[in-house]
Amino acid sequence: MRPDSEHKTEAKIMASNTPILDRVNGPADLNQFSAEELTELANEIRPLLINKLSITGGHVGPNLGVVELTIALHTVFNSPVDHIVWDVSHQAYTHKILTGRKEAWLSPEHFHDVGPYTDPTESKHDYFNIGHTSTSIGLADGMAAARDLRGGSENVIAVIGDGALSGGLAYEALSNAAMLNSNLIIVVNDNEMSIAEDHGGLYKGLAQLRATNGKSPNNLFKALGLDYMYVEGGNDIPTLLAAFTQVHDIDHPIVVHVHTIKGLGYAPALANEEAFHWHAAFDIETGAARHPNTAKTYSDVVLDELDAEIAAGAPVVAINAAIPGGFHLKKFAAKHPDRYHDVGIAEQQSITFAAGLAQQGARPVAFENTTFLQRAYDQLSHDLGVNKLPAVIVYSGGHVTGGDPTHQSTFDLAMLTNIPGMTVLVPADAGELTAAVRWALHQNDGPVAIRLPGGPADKSVAPTDFDPDRMRELQPGHDVALLAIGSMLPLAKQVAAKLQADRNITATIVDPRRVDALVDQDELAHLLANHELVVTFEEDSVVGGFGEKVSRFFGPTNVRTLNLGAKRRFDHKQTRAELMDEYKLTPETATVAIEDVLD
Amino acid sequence: MRPDSEHKTEAKIMASNTPILDRVNGPADLNQFSAEELTELANEIRPLLINKLSITGGHVGPNLGVVELTIALHTVFNSPVDHIVWDVSHQAYTHKILTGRKEAWLSPEHFHDVGPYTDPTESKHDYFNIGHTSTSIGLADGMAAARDLRGGSENVIAVIGDGALSGGLAYEALSNAAMLNSNLIIVVNDNEMSIAEDHGGLYKGLAQLRATNGKSPNNLFKALGLDYMYVEGGNDIPTLLAAFTQVHDIDHPIVVHVHTIKGLGYAPALANEEAFHWHAAFDIETGAARHPNTAKTYSDVVLDELDAEIAAGAPVVAINAAIPGGFHLKKFAAKHPDRYHDVGIAEQQSITFAAGLAQQGARPVAFENTTFLQRAYDQLSHDLGVNKLPAVIVYSGGHVTGGDPTHQSTFDLAMLTNIPGMTVLVPADAGELTAAVRWALHQNDGPVAIRLPGGPADKSVAPTDFDPDRMRELQPGHDVALLAIGSMLPLAKQVAAKLQADRNITATIVDPRRVDALVDQDELAHLLANHELVVTFEEDSVVGGFGEKVSRFFGPTNVRTLNLGAKRRFDHKQTRAELMDEYKLTPETATVAIEDVLD
Repeated sequence: MRPDSEHKTEAKIMASNTPILDRVNGPADLNQFSAEELTELANEIRPLLINKLSITGGHVGPNLGVVELTIALHTVFNSPVDHIVWDVSHQAYTHKILTGRKEAWLSPEHFHDVGPYTDPTESKHDYFNIGHTSTSIGLADGMAAARDLRGGSENVIAVIGDGALSGGLAYEALSNAAMLNSNLIIVVNDNEMSIAEDHGGLYKGLAQLRATNGKSPNNLFKALGLDYMYVEGGNDIPTLLAAFTQVHDIDHPIVVHVHTIKGLGYAPALANEEAFHWHAAFDIETGAARHPNTAKTYSDVVLDELDAEIAAGAPVVAINAAIPGGFHLKKFAAKHPDRYHDVGIAEQQSITFAAGLAQQGARPVAFENTTFLQRAYDQLSHDLGVNKLPAVIVYSGGHVTGGDPTHQSTFDLAMLTNIPGMTVLVPADAGELTAAVRWALHQNDGPVAIRLPGGPADKSVAPTDFDPDRMRELQPGHDVALLAIGSMLPLAKQVAAKLQADRNITATIVDPRRVDALVDQDELAHLLANHELVVTFEEDSVVGGFGEKVSRFFGPTNVRTLNLGAKRRFDHKQTRAELMDEYKLTPETATVAIEDVLD
Repeated sequence: MRPDSEHKTEAKIMASNTPILDRVNGPADLNQFSAEELTELANEIRPLLINKLSITGGHVGPNLGVVELTIALHTVFNSPVDHIVWDVSHQAYTHKILTGRKEAWLSPEHFHDVGPYTDPTESKHDYFNIGHTSTSIGLADGMAAARDLRGGSENVIAVIGDGALSGGLAYEALSNAAMLNSNLIIVVNDNEMSIAEDHGGLYKGLAQLRATNGKSPNNLFKALGLDYMYVEGGNDIPTLLAAFTQVHDIDHPIVVHVHTIKGLGYAPALANEEAFHWHAAFDIETGAARHPNTAKTYSDVVLDELDAEIAAGAPVVAINAAIPGGFHLKKFAAKHPDRYHDVGIAEQQSITFAAGLAQQGARPVAFENTTFLQRAYDQLSHDLGVNKLPAVIVYSGGHVTGGDPTHQSTFDLAMLTNIPGMTVLVPADAGELTAAVRWALHQNDGPVAIRLPGGPADKSVAPTDFDPDRMRELQPGHDVALLAIGSMLPLAKQVAAKLQADRNITATIVDPRRVDALVDQDELAHLLANHELVVTFEEDSVVGGFGEKVSRFFGPTNVRTLNLGAKRRFDHKQTRAELMDEYKLTPETATVAIEDVLD
């Protein structure tokens, strides 16, 4: 059911003349154009998107699918008086182009002037920094309620994809929207895809609605008490203009279910929708990555261990919440189809589901991204922690990246290490990672979270003699001890060399392995007896993280402590290098900080 | 539409003979009885429930509504081979009575032998410690998937109330259930109520299903791809036996939507369903509380301030997630109906909705229970924290209670104080509370969480000169400083008196007020210059809480620290007194701990 795709010509790849766009400096300028000219505008914008994406990388499919939808919304509605909220906001490039930021697509020197998501510091047409899914309806509910309290009359519009509808927050917000007795327009941008394919019974219902032109009785939105309109031609400007004009200034909440085509206008994105949901820089002609990355990853290391466990008869089950690509899980699914579950964009369910599996003796391994895993905080605590169920959470995060605040991964330990019953391991290399996964799958004391090391996998350390309750001393020393977790071990070694050179201090270097609690009494006694300063290094927020636990332990003693790590802060637009310097996580800055304490 | 209520006689209030129940020592014993005898069993159980509830307090309505449902489930299904998962598990009294624990209702000396929720340590018929809503379907999804992996054939049954369906996790799990190609029975126990009345468009759909005997086209469950059966007579044993027999061993997931009557058999519970959702000990004849509590609460103090702000023109809006009673919000709603929103059991939405309101200039105040607020961790972080939106969260928690682990409130600071941008205030009395709310409603720097003091409200301190960035010094001193938050100030005073008596030390006593960061440079300099030990007191988990931040600050200095507080642990069945002693939060234990450091 993709009727639009037939009559669309492939957009020309190279940006060329943009006579219509040249006349658009804000959404108000769209009113001067005919529907035909607006369609031409879409044909001008699409090559700009593809051209920049091929150079910078970014969200390809989501943005190509909503060019016409965005033009139509900004033609019919009066932004920023009317408020449009973009879910996840990974599809807001055309919105940015139409709202005063087109130079970031027209001029390579301005490509990095705008961020990948909506950002109120960029434009009065953006209301929120958004990067997690399923929030747009709830935010719009609140904006509409505030409007009603003040007696306003503007339109409030949420634009949400079908993938994001699998998140429980979207459902809570839909159900609440139905209680509103005033204007609210919920545009469901149904492109039949999540990041990967959609998962869940919800999508049977949406497919029936698409197949029946919206007339299926199995209508989630009506079942939640909402008015409903179906629009098949989601990439056809006249159709969209008519639909939005019909609901403009409507006096009650309505769902406008629009069928669009993800990746429209770029053949490789249509051919491989998952790969082109987000894609690194690519060759326009072929769609091939410019810098293909074929190195073995730490996810591969985990999957190798799961294969071995399954071969040995272990009841291992892999779970993920709509991000299989990041963990190479498609190959696992192909090998073990009965042991693979993608729950959709539903992190809460990914953990509660794991709890049910573990209670019945299976060995669930949930693959998660730390910032998205925040959605499952309560489930980690209650469904796993209270119940001491041996689920394993393998997660990416704990890495200072710079860039966008909504995908910052430096809050993993502040979230995980304070949950009772959660063992948190930070392996430093492939050997420790394999050993940690193996250990976690064979213990019965409760949930274990394992942070994946960053970068390509390094198999340098053999997976032997691993005990999470024993710290690993890499260098014996005295006076100063450096406790460095995961990615910080190389830094600790550099700092130790500097301390040796500067002060003739032979620092003790320790890999703590386990970071939620200090349980290695022998090593703690050694640190206490032979050191005047214990320094901790972590590539995550020092507030609520590992180092503070060390400072609490040594607080009543004569051993001083220094906790180095990221700040408790959402970082906007700084580079990794700038941040590591500010956080004193470089050899120079860390050594100076330590020497300041010693002086 | 409550047809059953007519033909039911009020259960006799006093427990009398229990000839049927006397023959039931486990669910297998139910098979010997006719439907008539099982109905008689329900009539024996109901007075037992009412009698014990009137003495101990507990969940009245939820348990009275499902007596017949529970008997029928345990008659048709073969627990614990078949698995029944009770959502929230606040309705599991009859389940406990039928599964070997009836003495806890028959004999007053055994009333406290069982907990209020399901508990695997009590019985092999209980699979999880549960206390939060909306998890049962996800847990059952996992149990069914584990069964399929092992090649089992048992029935898996989730029992979930209509109120719990408003939580997003339930929806995520329903959508996932539809992907299962094997047995799963989801019993929706629809009693037309949440804790208070239901809120959300979802309930329009459920009402239509009840009104049409399940034939309404607006069917949430079918829209999510699930099979569906409606059962009107949810308190009629023969009807229930027939329905469950029909779905026994079914080969695919099905929703059995059962209409029950909350509070059935006890007139006061039927007359006031919200008050009797959970009720303290009451007089059976009248339903009146045995120990009525009419003292002014700290919630009342907040509501007084909101009234004043509204009178002065502030765009204040109160939000809660289905627990208005705990905060006396019904009286606020009556006064300010346009400024009150109950979003249902949907904590995620309560915070995202607040973000939308705040972005548009309104001043949302969300009333939350700290353990339930865990559901909104990501929304607190992203929708409020990243966006620096000035929403106010007033919450109950930060109190060592003992008893059930699932409602433990000692993890509030470990959750809130590590979220970037979240200011967390712990007022010590009514004056500070009023001042904190007033300050929070007039600042523009981001979200503010305010912990309600425990116990009845005390207006002893006038709400003047409040600055969250200034600590309050209650007693000047030297050598030892006692930093005590909220409820711990009286303890700190007692400890100071002991230190004076034992050691002739005049300790400094400080109320830090703000607990997410140390920003009062003057007071910190004073503490650093004149003290050798800084002790922190907090009635919440010391891991990830306030004290560790203090230990990190003083770590590099010569000032030692000692952090006293609750453990990072889910406490099962201990009393508050036992826990406070173990946590060294009594005058004796705290003083000994401090003197140990000084020696």
